[in-house]
Amino acid sequence: MTAKSKKIRAAILGASGYTGAELVRLLVRHPNVEIVLMTADRKAGQPIDTVYPHLTGLGLPDLIAVSDVEWPGLELDVIFCALPHATSQEIIKGILHETGHGFIDEMIIERPADYANAIQGSVKVIDLSADFRLRDIDVYTKWYSEYHQAAELQKEAVYGLTEHYREDIKKARLVACPGCYPTAALLTLIPLLKDKKICKDGIIIDAKSGVSGAGRSLREANLFTEVSEAMHPYAIAAHRHSPEIEQELSRAYGEDLMVTFTPHLVPMNRGELETIYVNMADGQTIADLRESLSKVYEDEPFVHLVGEDVIPATRHVRGSNQCLIGVYADRVPGRAILVVAIDNLIKGSSGQAIQNMNIMFGLKETLSLEQAPLFP
Amino acid sequence: MTAKSKKIRAAILGASGYTGAELVRLLVRHPNVEIVLMTADRKAGQPIDTVYPHLTGLGLPDLIAVSDVEWPGLELDVIFCALPHATSQEIIKGILHETGHGFIDEMIIERPADYANAIQGSVKVIDLSADFRLRDIDVYTKWYSEYHQAAELQKEAVYGLTEHYREDIKKARLVACPGCYPTAALLTLIPLLKDKKICKDGIIIDAKSGVSGAGRSLREANLFTEVSEAMHPYAIAAHRHSPEIEQELSRAYGEDLMVTFTPHLVPMNRGELETIYVNMADGQTIADLRESLSKVYEDEPFVHLVGEDVIPATRHVRGSNQCLIGVYADRVPGRAILVVAIDNLIKGSSGQAIQNMNIMFGLKETLSLEQAPLFP
Amino acid sequence: MTAKSKKIRAAILGASGYTGAELVRLLVRHPNVEIVLMTADRKAGQPIDTVYPHLTGLGLPDLIAVSDVEWPGLELDVIFCALPHATSQEIIKGILHETGHGFIDEMIIERPADYANAIQGSVKVIDLSADFRLRDIDVYTKWYSEYHQAAELQKEAVYGLTEHYREDIKKARLVACPGCYPTAALLTLIPLLKDKKICKDGIIIDAKSGVSGAGRSLREANLFTEVSEAMHPYAIAAHRHSPEIEQELSRAYGEDLMVTFTPHLVPMNRGELETIYVNMADGQTIADLRESLSKVYEDEPFVHLVGEDVIPATRHVRGSNQCLIGVYADRVPGRAILVVAIDNLIKGSSGQAIQNMNIMFGLKETLSLEQAPLFP
Amino acid sequence: MTAKSKKIRAAILGASGYTGAELVRLLVRHPNVEIVLMTADRKAGQPIDTVYPHLTGLGLPDLIAVSDVEWPGLELDVIFCALPHATSQEIIKGILHETGHGFIDEMIIERPADYANAIQGSVKVIDLSADFRLRDIDVYTKWYSEYHQAAELQKEAVYGLTEHYREDIKKARLVACPGCYPTAALLTLIPLLKDKKICKDGIIIDAKSGVSGAGRSLREANLFTEVSEAMHPYAIAAHRHSPEIEQELSRAYGEDLMVTFTPHLVPMNRGELETIYVNMADGQTIADLRESLSKVYEDEPFVHLVGEDVIPATRHVRGSNQCLIGVYADRVPGRAILVVAIDNLIKGSSGQAIQNMNIMFGLKETLSLEQAPLFP
Repeated sequence: MTAKSKKIRAAILGASGYTGAELVRLLVRHPNVEIVLMTADRKAGQPIDTVYPHLTGLGLPDLIAVSDVEWPGLELDVIFCALPHATSQEIIKGILHETGHGFIDEMIIERPADYANAIQGSVKVIDLSADFRLRDIDVYTKWYSEYHQAAELQKEAVYGLTEHYREDIKKARLVACPGCYPTAALLTLIPLLKDKKICKDGIIIDAKSGVSGAGRSLREANLFTEVSEAMHPYAIAAHRHSPEIEQELSRAYGEDLMVTFTPHLVPMNRGELETIYVNMADGQTIADLRESLSKVYEDEPFVHLVGEDVIPATRHVRGSNQCLIGVYADRVPGRAILVVAIDNLIKGSSGQAIQNMNIMFGLKETLSLEQAPLFP
Repeated sequence: MTAKSKKIRAAILGASGYTGAELVRLLVRHPNVEIVLMTADRKAGQPIDTVYPHLTGLGLPDLIAVSDVEWPGLELDVIFCALPHATSQEIIKGILHETGHGFIDEMIIERPADYANAIQGSVKVIDLSADFRLRDIDVYTKWYSEYHQAAELQKEAVYGLTEHYREDIKKARLVACPGCYPTAALLTLIPLLKDKKICKDGIIIDAKSGVSGAGRSLREANLFTEVSEAMHPYAIAAHRHSPEIEQELSRAYGEDLMVTFTPHLVPMNRGELETIYVNMADGQTIADLRESLSKVYEDEPFVHLVGEDVIPATRHVRGSNQCLIGVYADRVPGRAILVVAIDNLIKGSSGQAIQNMNIMFGLKETLSLEQAPLFP
Repeated sequence: MTAKSKKIRAAILGASGYTGAELVRLLVRHPNVEIVLMTADRKAGQPIDTVYPHLTGLGLPDLIAVSDVEWPGLELDVIFCALPHATSQEIIKGILHETGHGFIDEMIIERPADYANAIQGSVKVIDLSADFRLRDIDVYTKWYSEYHQAAELQKEAVYGLTEHYREDIKKARLVACPGCYPTAALLTLIPLLKDKKICKDGIIIDAKSGVSGAGRSLREANLFTEVSEAMHPYAIAAHRHSPEIEQELSRAYGEDLMVTFTPHLVPMNRGELETIYVNMADGQTIADLRESLSKVYEDEPFVHLVGEDVIPATRHVRGSNQCLIGVYADRVPGRAILVVAIDNLIKGSSGQAIQNMNIMFGLKETLSLEQAPLFP
Repeated sequence: MTAKSKKIRAAILGASGYTGAELVRLLVRHPNVEIVLMTADRKAGQPIDTVYPHLTGLGLPDLIAVSDVEWPGLELDVIFCALPHATSQEIIKGILHETGHGFIDEMIIERPADYANAIQGSVKVIDLSADFRLRDIDVYTKWYSEYHQAAELQKEAVYGLTEHYREDIKKARLVACPGCYPTAALLTLIPLLKDKKICKDGIIIDAKSGVSGAGRSLREANLFTEVSEAMHPYAIAAHRHSPEIEQELSRAYGEDLMVTFTPHLVPMNRGELETIYVNMADGQTIADLRESLSKVYEDEPFVHLVGEDVIPATRHVRGSNQCLIGVYADRVPGRAILVVAIDNLIKGSSGQAIQNMNIMFGLKETLSLEQAPLFP
């Protein structure tokens, strides 16, 4: 932390999206954090409470455009980047000053040298976009149809799946937080694949998400009248979270693998549930799978294997950083059904980001994330 | 039809459940049907509009207890049986007078001889319970933990999946309407298995249903506060619709097969969507699968293969007897993803029952089922 | 009807909004109507089923831009105008050819003379916008901040509150259908004010509406995530339906009066409920109020006074053209509480429009509107 | 606090209702509180996480029946009583040992002397039922049809509307927390009536509540399918919160007054919004009303007058102890419209109870209540 303040001086870039707002909501009660900067280009100049009335009266700075930030003097310790992909990599590249000249679009950052200089040294970056999640730049460009502008930085980026990369996160300067769907899938499957409890082939992830995952952007498909009393799958065999899931599962298993992944939109604000179908490895039983997960997560504050007669539900985790995992025998011999539930905006996004921040700064990992789920 | 009336004289047993109410709602506008009897033991003596205010002003008879029915004189042509399983078989056994003595629990029917006599001859029975769906009585007793009291009748019962048993339904005296989940799964999979377009192994049905599927019974799990803003799977590897699905799929394929089937509760009143994962047979393509379905359903009024760039959604069928099926290639080679959507209370229950009645009585199959879906 | 067809040849202008889609959904089953034209400028060239998949397979014409309509040859009998206000009056003015030259913005109608000519004579217009509802042009311009371009037509427009203007509607060439909020309020209050059962002062209308009332336009406030699990009033003391309500209530009472009117947005797709607080006139009782309403509506197919122990709910009318009215004594002496429920898209909009069409063409008034409410 | 523990030792009676669960959820994070007892007669013997899976892993005691409590040794400092009315008074009477013999129904408390003795002295009781809210026992018996068994205790009970009875609460042994509807109405109206800014006659409170206000009891009316996509008023002119509102408003004004109060059920889990219609006193303006409220609440942490161009919405307070109040001019001269929003389970119930506890124990009033609202 800087001398100027005993608190961690934090910036939130992209504070007007739901992910940004959730960072604000959680961080504002963090005993060691002070939010000193919030950007939102389209809402620049507005106080946060006109954009998000639920964030009224919290003593927060007004929203400003990234290009208007007076970086010198901010003495930032951590930057949460909740910007769209592609924009994210450009901004972060500037922040971590891989180069000192002209690397940032003038439309976005007017004085890149200033702010790179201002924040050099100790600043840490926690990215919530997809820009640094994929280790292979070619995979990134294939799925995102974008030239990656910060390929060098990708090499040092740590994949922020907290429970599995904790040691790397401690030392990281740049953490790429996982997508919401990958978070749930990976927490469930990594231990089982690492331990060879399940086969690498035939993994099917049927995912269901609340609407907040689609953000606050204006799309007909997200209108109340289109979503309420309705449900449907989308991006069948084409969702960008697929390569991210496969990357980490392949790494866990030690061989390349592919998964079937189908997301669905469900009429609820928050919550994500994945029903995962797997083939057990020869000789493995449900008890073996349970043991594998139990061993990894028994001391974790946020990831829990539920009892054999309990089924995870999104209402059990709503508004919290909790992740619940259940393991069940299928009627078809040799097959298992896994169920995992998280709050997509918390463990699936902003909560995990803060959990990572706590680790990066040597703080107690649960700080500002202890709130029990909100039910009903 | 009787001489007394040019209209089909219909009875609805169990009119106080959602399925019963939906039968009433649809039949009341049927040009050839007159509802002359509605039973509901717990609501006996009440007019239907105190139980279901949306059914006010329709000139319907009051609800009565089954045991109070004066069967002689009713001159019924068709009986819709929307009773719980086990109760259903007992009542129907009496109606179709397999025996003439003491076969009916005195608690339910006080004068079985009377009513068996009254309705003998031409009466047809359309059962919406699970009692006559399973061809193998042993399978029934295994899954329902009940001794089946009308095993002989099971032999003549026709499985009422309209589009696939139309010829049998025409001649049937007793039709056992499929469950809601089986209806969606079977309409999608039967043609593909018959044509050997997909493998019999590895079929996974991830099903999602609105809450009306749980009926109007008082259970904590169905309270608004428990369901809203939430979702979860239930009856994992244990749902009673599994053997029904397997029975019909095995029959279609010509060999016994098992499926993985997981239902989920979704916060909406109506609607059912199934995402089905299959392995294509060697050499088969998505185009082959589409052709197989197209061939079977191209002239059907209620079952439709959607375009390749369309994804079925429950809002596309809400309040209608429509069934929409989509076929998509998975990223994993050799695998396909099928999506099917119905309204669980209509095509999945009462609508299909009426469709069957239309067939049984030689009427135009779409009568009282033409209403386009209600959206938004 | 034209010689060309035994059916009424109908056009729907603005078919891509929810109101337009609801007209389509209802009219497509009308035995005497054929939809021969549907316009939607932003969706021009698309089949209706890509815009509204629930309207698939109905044999409907593709959507076209108003400016591309080949009016000669259409031989229209009725035009439903579901366009935004201001646009509506311009189009209708052309249709009813008040002038034959240049009266229509070239951006909207390219060949006004053609189409005015084509449709002259018998064509009837049913407008669902606000353009012809207000009898006083000055009131219109005050509330809508628009110069009214068809003031002469206003004089002949009939206010389409069916139950109270039936005789005028029979002879009308142009019917201005009431707004959804006014429909519910007026059906409840007009008889009571006409009969001097209640005081003209102190009428308070607390209105609650589902989200479909806001249409399908892209506004942040209508996103699922903003509306679900939430509610709030809007346009307090400033809603444009206020002058419409006051106009008709003043007319009914015989003196100018003002009302307090507050609309609220409720997380449901359809449905509108108004809780209305009134002072009873001296000596009047709840029984007197009930009698006043009963007398007017006892033979109406769509408007009903509910029993004293029944409370109207939106679920009792969902998906139907029904209107339910309840009358209750307040604890405060001399005061009464009225409750009225409708489906805002049907009795509050498209259903009432079709009811008016039936009257204008001498048809049975309930045609295509008989469907019982959809519940659950 | 006791010597045994530095934390306040708290009991929650009736922990299996939503109010009880919300007390648990909030208190479990309170730095100065330890939950040492939770009762729930129908769920006795169960761990809280089988009843409320969202409260898993919090180190809480199992639920027990009230009659099985071993009171000696518990050394309770505070008891939250979230029991039904009538039961509540009986239990509390025992706890505060107005008599020492046979005063408690043997069915409920088996060893009343034991526990009265055990907890005598310093224990404080915070009642969330209606039993001690009404100062006039006759009014209680009239509205609750129950003989009041603890009339003497009523005299010392302090009405727990925090912002208006803070000084009394500090010294109270027994606090009767207000109902949810009264909390919202009174916070809005008390300052205006005290300052004579509004007339005492003609106050109309149109209230809307989420379903959690109905508790977790099994009633058909609270099923998802009955509530979703629907809304309706209930208990018109007959809700038990009416006398409570009138009692406090009369007291504020200095004269007896009556209000019109109509609650509505809205399809959301949480949240309560009241739209209140008032006549301004002669010469008063909206600015005067705003000043009156601003003066009272400007330093309050939980009650806020919103800006003139902001309208309170339940989503602005969901999951928090906040109360937002708006004041607007009606179009009708001399009238004002007030809007107030709270979370019914927090500021309307458990949150206010904890706020009162903080005051009773000399703690910072906002402890465990600081969480910003959960949105979306």
